[in-house]
Amino acid sequence: MEETKPLRVGMVGYAFMGATHSQAWRTAPRFFDLPLSPRLAAVAGRDPGRVAAAAAKLGWESTETDWRRLIERDDIDLIDICTPGNTHAEIAIAALEAGKHVLCEKPLANSVAEAERMTAAADSAAARGVYSMCGFSYRRTPALSLAKRLVDEGALGQLRHVRAQYLQDWLSDEDAPLTWRLDRTKSGSGSLGDIGAHVIDAAQWITGQDIAGVSALLETFVKQRPVGGDLVGLGGHGSGGERGEVTVDDAAIFSARFDGGSGTAGAIGVFEATRFALGRKNAMRLELNGSKASLAFDFEDMNSLWFYDAADEPNAGFRKIQVTEPEHPYTGHWWPVGHGLGYEHAFTHQVVDLVEAIAAGKQPTPSFADALQVQRVLDAVETSAADESRWTKVEGA
Amino acid sequence: MEETKPLRVGMVGYAFMGATHSQAWRTAPRFFDLPLSPRLAAVAGRDPGRVAAAAAKLGWESTETDWRRLIERDDIDLIDICTPGNTHAEIAIAALEAGKHVLCEKPLANSVAEAERMTAAADSAAARGVYSMCGFSYRRTPALSLAKRLVDEGALGQLRHVRAQYLQDWLSDEDAPLTWRLDRTKSGSGSLGDIGAHVIDAAQWITGQDIAGVSALLETFVKQRPVGGDLVGLGGHGSGGERGEVTVDDAAIFSARFDGGSGTAGAIGVFEATRFALGRKNAMRLELNGSKASLAFDFEDMNSLWFYDAADEPNAGFRKIQVTEPEHPYTGHWWPVGHGLGYEHAFTHQVVDLVEAIAAGKQPTPSFADALQVQRVLDAVETSAADESRWTKVEGA
Amino acid sequence: MEETKPLRVGMVGYAFMGATHSQAWRTAPRFFDLPLSPRLAAVAGRDPGRVAAAAAKLGWESTETDWRRLIERDDIDLIDICTPGNTHAEIAIAALEAGKHVLCEKPLANSVAEAERMTAAADSAAARGVYSMCGFSYRRTPALSLAKRLVDEGALGQLRHVRAQYLQDWLSDEDAPLTWRLDRTKSGSGSLGDIGAHVIDAAQWITGQDIAGVSALLETFVKQRPVGGDLVGLGGHGSGGERGEVTVDDAAIFSARFDGGSGTAGAIGVFEATRFALGRKNAMRLELNGSKASLAFDFEDMNSLWFYDAADEPNAGFRKIQVTEPEHPYTGHWWPVGHGLGYEHAFTHQVVDLVEAIAAGKQPTPSFADALQVQRVLDAVETSAADESRWTKVEGA
Amino acid sequence: MEETKPLRVGMVGYAFMGATHSQAWRTAPRFFDLPLSPRLAAVAGRDPGRVAAAAAKLGWESTETDWRRLIERDDIDLIDICTPGNTHAEIAIAALEAGKHVLCEKPLANSVAEAERMTAAADSAAARGVYSMCGFSYRRTPALSLAKRLVDEGALGQLRHVRAQYLQDWLSDEDAPLTWRLDRTKSGSGSLGDIGAHVIDAAQWITGQDIAGVSALLETFVKQRPVGGDLVGLGGHGSGGERGEVTVDDAAIFSARFDGGSGTAGAIGVFEATRFALGRKNAMRLELNGSKASLAFDFEDMNSLWFYDAADEPNAGFRKIQVTEPEHPYTGHWWPVGHGLGYEHAFTHQVVDLVEAIAAGKQPTPSFADALQVQRVLDAVETSAADESRWTKVEGA
Repeated sequence: MEETKPLRVGMVGYAFMGATHSQAWRTAPRFFDLPLSPRLAAVAGRDPGRVAAAAAKLGWESTETDWRRLIERDDIDLIDICTPGNTHAEIAIAALEAGKHVLCEKPLANSVAEAERMTAAADSAAARGVYSMCGFSYRRTPALSLAKRLVDEGALGQLRHVRAQYLQDWLSDEDAPLTWRLDRTKSGSGSLGDIGAHVIDAAQWITGQDIAGVSALLETFVKQRPVGGDLVGLGGHGSGGERGEVTVDDAAIFSARFDGGSGTAGAIGVFEATRFALGRKNAMRLELNGSKASLAFDFEDMNSLWFYDAADEPNAGFRKIQVTEPEHPYTGHWWPVGHGLGYEHAFTHQVVDLVEAIAAGKQPTPSFADALQVQRVLDAVETSAADESRWTKVEGA
Repeated sequence: MEETKPLRVGMVGYAFMGATHSQAWRTAPRFFDLPLSPRLAAVAGRDPGRVAAAAAKLGWESTETDWRRLIERDDIDLIDICTPGNTHAEIAIAALEAGKHVLCEKPLANSVAEAERMTAAADSAAARGVYSMCGFSYRRTPALSLAKRLVDEGALGQLRHVRAQYLQDWLSDEDAPLTWRLDRTKSGSGSLGDIGAHVIDAAQWITGQDIAGVSALLETFVKQRPVGGDLVGLGGHGSGGERGEVTVDDAAIFSARFDGGSGTAGAIGVFEATRFALGRKNAMRLELNGSKASLAFDFEDMNSLWFYDAADEPNAGFRKIQVTEPEHPYTGHWWPVGHGLGYEHAFTHQVVDLVEAIAAGKQPTPSFADALQVQRVLDAVETSAADESRWTKVEGA
Repeated sequence: MEETKPLRVGMVGYAFMGATHSQAWRTAPRFFDLPLSPRLAAVAGRDPGRVAAAAAKLGWESTETDWRRLIERDDIDLIDICTPGNTHAEIAIAALEAGKHVLCEKPLANSVAEAERMTAAADSAAARGVYSMCGFSYRRTPALSLAKRLVDEGALGQLRHVRAQYLQDWLSDEDAPLTWRLDRTKSGSGSLGDIGAHVIDAAQWITGQDIAGVSALLETFVKQRPVGGDLVGLGGHGSGGERGEVTVDDAAIFSARFDGGSGTAGAIGVFEATRFALGRKNAMRLELNGSKASLAFDFEDMNSLWFYDAADEPNAGFRKIQVTEPEHPYTGHWWPVGHGLGYEHAFTHQVVDLVEAIAAGKQPTPSFADALQVQRVLDAVETSAADESRWTKVEGA
Repeated sequence: MEETKPLRVGMVGYAFMGATHSQAWRTAPRFFDLPLSPRLAAVAGRDPGRVAAAAAKLGWESTETDWRRLIERDDIDLIDICTPGNTHAEIAIAALEAGKHVLCEKPLANSVAEAERMTAAADSAAARGVYSMCGFSYRRTPALSLAKRLVDEGALGQLRHVRAQYLQDWLSDEDAPLTWRLDRTKSGSGSLGDIGAHVIDAAQWITGQDIAGVSALLETFVKQRPVGGDLVGLGGHGSGGERGEVTVDDAAIFSARFDGGSGTAGAIGVFEATRFALGRKNAMRLELNGSKASLAFDFEDMNSLWFYDAADEPNAGFRKIQVTEPEHPYTGHWWPVGHGLGYEHAFTHQVVDLVEAIAAGKQPTPSFADALQVQRVLDAVETSAADESRWTKVEGA
């Protein structure tokens, strides 16, 4: 391993996503044989004291207080963007132009226009052997990777239904504080872009079909929230004083038609994203019904995939597959069967696939183009919701 | 019990619903103390041989081959309508005008206009002490009755989300035969009216809120089906020959806004009904998220209600309440705790409540007016689906 | 149906089991085509007023205040014994000798000696075309019937493990009253005979193997209970006054070796029966692990059977089979798929099979001999528990 | 963090447990504020090439080919023992005598005599400020830590039942190879010591009661296995050639009485450990029933704890607590609620608690004395099983 060429990573941002990415970069080479050796070379943040503390805690070798400086450094090979969505375009485009590979957190951007510019930059860089990936990490949850494999193998037959939900409850408390995630200028949207984007990406990726049109409804249940207050997890309890405007959606519902991929009739879908489903902590759920089989997943039981195969009838039933077998995606690198993985492992797998693609000179997925398609769906959802839920074609689809 | 006044029932139709209602009339007085004694007096059907066989099998004392004759008989107190929806209006109105109480299967009618006429007849009859009920039997599943009780007691706080599904799979086979349920002239609609109506009624009843507007999508996956073939359960496998047109929806998806009841902000809802969710046999599901608690139900585990109470935090979790305690609705009349009930028990409870209301001279629920409101939602769903999913106000709401 | 020969039933006892049996006799011919027509001819009980009220409520045509009189009547064909275990032997033997078929509630008797005498009487009667059955009703729960079918078909391969539990909680309250079920002279034993007997019978029947030896532990947690008090379900809350001795076990645990049937190595088993498993209401559970497949059942979700087939590996998982298909045992006579049955349906199926066996002149199962084998296991358990848990051979095995 | 005093770890062994411990040492300081800084100083193994490869892969700074050399090094503060059980005593005692802290994998030893010597050495070392811990890692699974907290708070009332299972299936295949885990001279025992020990420790720890006596049954289903073959996970498929003797148990079943702790009546327990429960991959399960509440856990859904509180009646039900709240043990250091942890996190928590205890000069738990008590239970189980399951007192209890 000593002799493997290093991949020197510079990370921008060091909050929730920064901690997750750090763990992934550190852990990946310990369980997978990587063609390049990731080094946690530098982390950037505006506040010198806080970025130094984060570097020490998370294990980064050096710090910068300006992400531009990170991009200038010639001892950095890859920029890992863990900041709010409004900053993604500028950083990613600058990095790609400087010849750095890019891993960018989702959603790719806060607007289709930005996402298009980023995708153009990514395509142009790829032609020069500089690659980019958008961090729809759930794709690398082994159970969802297995779902993708089963669909690709044709196990489901013709797909009819997609049922996707992402249910959380950390805003149920009316006094949870007004964080950047509730500020449209920073986050782009609310539940829609934050968590809805994950199920949109997962649904399109696993089915191999793009969403062609939508009809949508957005709702903001709590219009004003405390400006300050203690953050606990993503939520918490705000102070009693001043309240500010929530400028994003609390919940998003939409129906969809998929394009059916290569010439076949498309599935219909129903999507819901909310942070007000009291008792649902991280219920990222996906169910697919085909003519031959069905699949169901719930992240709250992330090591399982439920699979119904009509060929088993009359003794068919949804099988609870524990996705921890050596034959399953990624899991053979970890523990014996039945010894489940956790939330952060998908990030480690993401790093593994990214490093392998870079070393092989191949485009990693999800590409910025894949993420742009998600962005277009988000855009169509907002357009429809603003126009009496009218059916809205997804731009470019 | 000997001395209790009889309630002489005349039933029209004797298929699936007829068998269910027969079991209910027969069983109710054995487990509940009823103020009137139901007698299975007569059953009507067009084919003399088949109606006679049905009467013998199901235990009815006499037969008629014309429902009009049933209504003319002065030894009949109540008409129980178990025929397809296109016949409901004529039978029910005639029965009410003849002074017979009416129990009418759902959906109330195949159109709003019919449902309005039926409701007018019902209101007029009620003024004369002649009562009517629509058979939304799921209301009397003990777990859903308990859900209603919890909402009425204020346990949920302000209601934010309604999540309703009715998923079956008996049409997944492309060669399942073309039955009356797939013929719009008889059934009115497909999954929407057949099963969607159940979750619409349950959602409105439990929340105490009416649906005010919807945006909808309807889909028919399999456009033509075999004209003949063996019926197995509701589905089966058709013969290979001639195929006819399916004129109803296979699946229905809609988002909804509730009116909020007395002055409060309404919940938002997402509804789905389908007979193509492979592996889901009778997944009639309802989830409610409020500011203080949540509830979840799935008919495939019909003796349980899941209840999340935020007051239990940080050791909160969805409680799987086995709704078989003496304190729970209806269940004290049956078996010891943990000895679950089945599908047909809700019909028995329906008979119990109907008989008690008639004896007390009170309007039973769901009234025809309640069912008319469901019909108006069905109508708005079809209107929206035909108009690019545009937001559509529920008429009269 | 009119022309079918009647089977005139005389029932002794009319409490919990009497209500269940009444519903079964009444319902069976409505859903199954029976070769004989059951008639609820007479019910016997000591108190004239109470037995008359029970007859009216449960729908029996006549009453007797002495069970001997019931046996003397020549218009009675079958005696259905629903009384406590200490009375079974006398009634059953008298009935069989009088040429009446017998359905006897479980456990067959309160001692091996009694059970042996009953079995001798049953064998002798059978030679004369007079049949008897012991009411281990759980065998006719469709999911357990399907389990038996799968084992018989060889789906499990060589059987290694049996894991059987019957967990209830209605004695958790220290002040639940001292009923006949806690009095050894009436009930024979406590949790062991009342509910343990059910899982012993189910395990032996489904595996086709007899239990050959056991090592056991019995425990009585609450040694004294209130003599009076309100009964609620099987338990309730006693009054504060006098307390009497509990003379039966509250919980029973034992390990077992099965005899392996025809020449193969036997499985090992672990059994537990208790009424102190707080929160477990009627968790009658059985799991079998074979070399090729496993099965798991829990009565609290009685319409499902979980089936793991190693042939599905690496995408194997316990399948939740909804045992409501037309191809499944009994269920085709009831409702469409997914419309589950309840506790009492197994009793209806028991009546169906009993009536068919009688009409065909065949021995129904479980026979008294089958029940005697259960009694011998109960006896071995008590012997082992009284002798430092020492391994104890099951008599006759 | 730079200034924190290092804790220099030397690890012996680098297979499954070595990989797990390495990840724990590396990860702990990234998510927890530790009073000492763990350094992966050296790893020891007999084969120079393989230990070097392991060091590179797992991230250790140096290697030794003799564990004695590791103990001699004065730049090592703690010895982490990840070898088979037959080597534990010699290494641990030598390390403690040399003044090194010790973390020793479970089971502590292969005999009570060894465990007693180790405990004596540990007690003597503790008096000199040198500490030891046995790696019953499941204690630090957050859901089980929460279970312990609830019991300690008195939430369960008087404890009546303990129901413990550890079910795996990796030996179901008769041709799985004969590894060291099946060789009594190396592993001490089979399922009993390997996995049974885990549930014994967990049950004693959570209840705060020691097991006082047992009655047991051991079974070896497959007596001979292929000597060679490919190891896959813990099992795999052996080659067709030579077969060797399996000298350990495949399955263990025992009943137990707990000592009741401080003066109260003890619970009764039933335990089962097996590697032949086809379909159960890592079902480490524990259920406790008390007079006031019950708890249930299954490692296959490791982020949940089920809690039934009788105070919730009649709307009580087992609550599925997602043990991912900031208030729950350990979880606040990781991800937002609902973002579950995996198998290895318990090892990280074990390191955290060990480091904190060492820094504070306090005895960490589980101590060697705690592990000796487990060893005595294992011994009593084997004694009872060899003596017709006769009740056997746990030595020293």
